[in-house]
Amino acid sequence: MQIKEVYGLVKDGLAGVDRQFKSLVESPGSTFPELGEMLGHILSGRGKAVRPLLALHAGSLYQYEQPKLTYMATASELMHIATLVHDDAIDKASVRRGKLTINKIWGTDKAIIFGDYLFAKAAQYAVSTGSLRVVRLFAQTLEAISRGELKQGFSAFNLEQSYDQYIERITGKTASLFALSTEGGAVLSGAPEESIEILSAFGLNLGIAFQIVDDVLDFIATEQEMGKPVGSDLAQGTITLPSLMLLERYPEDNPVKRIFRSEGDREKNIKEAIELVRSSTIVDECYRAASDYSARASHDLHRLPHTPSRQALLVMAEYVVKRKN
Amino acid sequence: MQIKEVYGLVKDGLAGVDRQFKSLVESPGSTFPELGEMLGHILSGRGKAVRPLLALHAGSLYQYEQPKLTYMATASELMHIATLVHDDAIDKASVRRGKLTINKIWGTDKAIIFGDYLFAKAAQYAVSTGSLRVVRLFAQTLEAISRGELKQGFSAFNLEQSYDQYIERITGKTASLFALSTEGGAVLSGAPEESIEILSAFGLNLGIAFQIVDDVLDFIATEQEMGKPVGSDLAQGTITLPSLMLLERYPEDNPVKRIFRSEGDREKNIKEAIELVRSSTIVDECYRAASDYSARASHDLHRLPHTPSRQALLVMAEYVVKRKN
Repeated sequence: MQIKEVYGLVKDGLAGVDRQFKSLVESPGSTFPELGEMLGHILSGRGKAVRPLLALHAGSLYQYEQPKLTYMATASELMHIATLVHDDAIDKASVRRGKLTINKIWGTDKAIIFGDYLFAKAAQYAVSTGSLRVVRLFAQTLEAISRGELKQGFSAFNLEQSYDQYIERITGKTASLFALSTEGGAVLSGAPEESIEILSAFGLNLGIAFQIVDDVLDFIATEQEMGKPVGSDLAQGTITLPSLMLLERYPEDNPVKRIFRSEGDREKNIKEAIELVRSSTIVDECYRAASDYSARASHDLHRLPHTPSRQALLVMAEYVVKRKN
Repeated sequence: MQIKEVYGLVKDGLAGVDRQFKSLVESPGSTFPELGEMLGHILSGRGKAVRPLLALHAGSLYQYEQPKLTYMATASELMHIATLVHDDAIDKASVRRGKLTINKIWGTDKAIIFGDYLFAKAAQYAVSTGSLRVVRLFAQTLEAISRGELKQGFSAFNLEQSYDQYIERITGKTASLFALSTEGGAVLSGAPEESIEILSAFGLNLGIAFQIVDDVLDFIATEQEMGKPVGSDLAQGTITLPSLMLLERYPEDNPVKRIFRSEGDREKNIKEAIELVRSSTIVDECYRAASDYSARASHDLHRLPHTPSRQALLVMAEYVVKRKN
C-alpha cells in the first residue's frame, strides 16, 4: 500500500474534517472579523493530518459512525494546532509550515488567547463524539502535553539529562496525542478493550518514533523541507536525542555545552553541532531508535481485524521513520 | 442572612473543593517538584470563591449528590484561575490577590503552559461530574471567555466603543463563567429546564453586575483593598464603564483620550482620570447600573424552591454590588 492510499481510504473522514474547519473559519467571521482571519490563517493549508489519519483508521477497524469519527479527528487536530500556537508563542517562532506564525502576525498576547479559543473548540468537538470516556482522554492528554512542555521548559539549558528523561518528555509532548487519536477512534467504534489497548500502545510508540525523527530532522533537514528554521531545538536549549548522543561522544569540548553555557558565538556553535551530527553515525543511530519504536508500535497489530485500515496503520508506522519533513 | 452564612450553608462543598486543591498540590509534587510549587503558589490562600459558592448553592435547590457538585465547583474555580494565569501573563501583571503572579515568579513562557495544565485539570473535574451536558457548558464557556478577551485585545486603545460593546465584552469575559457555575449546578441536581434557565440567567446578570463593580473598584479602591494595582484597566488600554462615562462627559480634552493617544505623562493622566471619576457622580451611576443587573438577576428567583440556598443567592446578589474589594 502506498502512502497515497492511506489518505484515500479515509478520504470521506478527511473531507469531513476540512468541512468542520471551513465552518469554523466562516461562522465567526461575520460577527468578529479578526477572529475569522486568525482561524483562516491557521486552518487553511492542511498539514500532514497525521492525527486525523490515526483516529480515522483506528476507528475504521470496527463498527463506526462517520460523524462521530470525524468529530474525533477534528478535535485531535484542533488540540494539536492549539498546542502549536502556544509553543510558537513561547519559542518566539516566526515560521511554521512555511507560513508566518500567529504570534508573529498578531503578537504573543493574542496568540495566548487564540490558543485557548482553539482548546475550547477542540473540547466542543470532543463532546460532540457523545463519549464521556473520549472527553476524559482529551483532558488527560492535554495534561500530559502541558506537563511534558513544562518539564522541557524547566530542563532547558540543563546538560544533565538522560535518555529516559528524553523519552518521557517526548511521550508527554507528542506521543500522548498520537495515543489519544488511536485510542479515541477505537473507543468510538466500540472496539473490545483488548483492541483499544493495542491501538493506544500503537499510537504511543508511533508518536515516540515520530518525535525522534522530528528531532533528527531539526539537525539534518533544510529549512525548506521543514517549513521552519533548523537547529531550533539547540537554540531553545532543548536537548534531543542527537544532542544527547553528541554529549556522550564528546564529553570534553563540545558545541552543545558551549551553547548551553553561552560560551563563544552561538550561531557558530549551532552550526558546528549540526555538522558533527551530520558527519557521524548519530543520524543512523537515531533512525534505528525510531525504527525500534515503530516496530514496537506494529508488533501487536496482527491481532486486530485484517482490514485495509490495519494495513494503513502499518504503512504509517513504516512511513514515519522514513519521512524527510 | 449574613454573608458568613452564605459560606456556612455550603461549608461541606467548600471543604471538598479545598481537599481537591490540596490533592492537586500534593500529588504531582512527588514526581515533578516545580509543578507542585506552582500549584501550591496558585491554590493556597483562597479567594472569595464566588464561583464555587454559586455552583454549590444553585446545585442545592434540588436533589444533588455532594461529590458531583464538589467536582463542578472545583472545575469552575480551576477554569477561573487558569484564565487569570493567562490574563496576568498577557498584562504582565506582577501582583494578584496580594501575591506575586505566576508570570512574575516563573516567567511568561511557563505561565502559558501552566495555564494550559490548569485547563486540563478543570476539564477532568468537569468530566468527573459524569454529565456530558455540563462538560459542553464548560467548553462553550471557555470559548465565550476567550472570545471576550480577544475582543478586548483587539479593541485596546480604541476610543470608539459603545456601552453595548462593553456589556458584550464583560458578558463573555466574566458573566459567562458565573452563568456556567449556576447552570452547571442546576443541571447536576436534576432541576427542571425552567429552573435551569432561571439559574443560568441569574448567574449571567450577577456576573455583569460583579464585573461592573470590579471595573469601578479599579478606579476607587486602594491597592491594598484590591490586592493588585489600581488604574490597571486604563494602563492596559481597556475601556470600562467609568471611562466610557468620562469620555461622554468630557468629549473634548479628556485624560482617557490622552492616555490612549500617548499624549503627555501617562501616570499623571491616569491619576487625573481616577480623580475625575472619584469626584463625579460616575461612581454612583456605575453602582446603579450594577444594581440594575443585580436586581435583574434576582427577579425570577422567587419561582425556585424556597430554601436557604435560594436566600443565599439573593444575599450574594445584594453583596456583589456593595463589595469594596
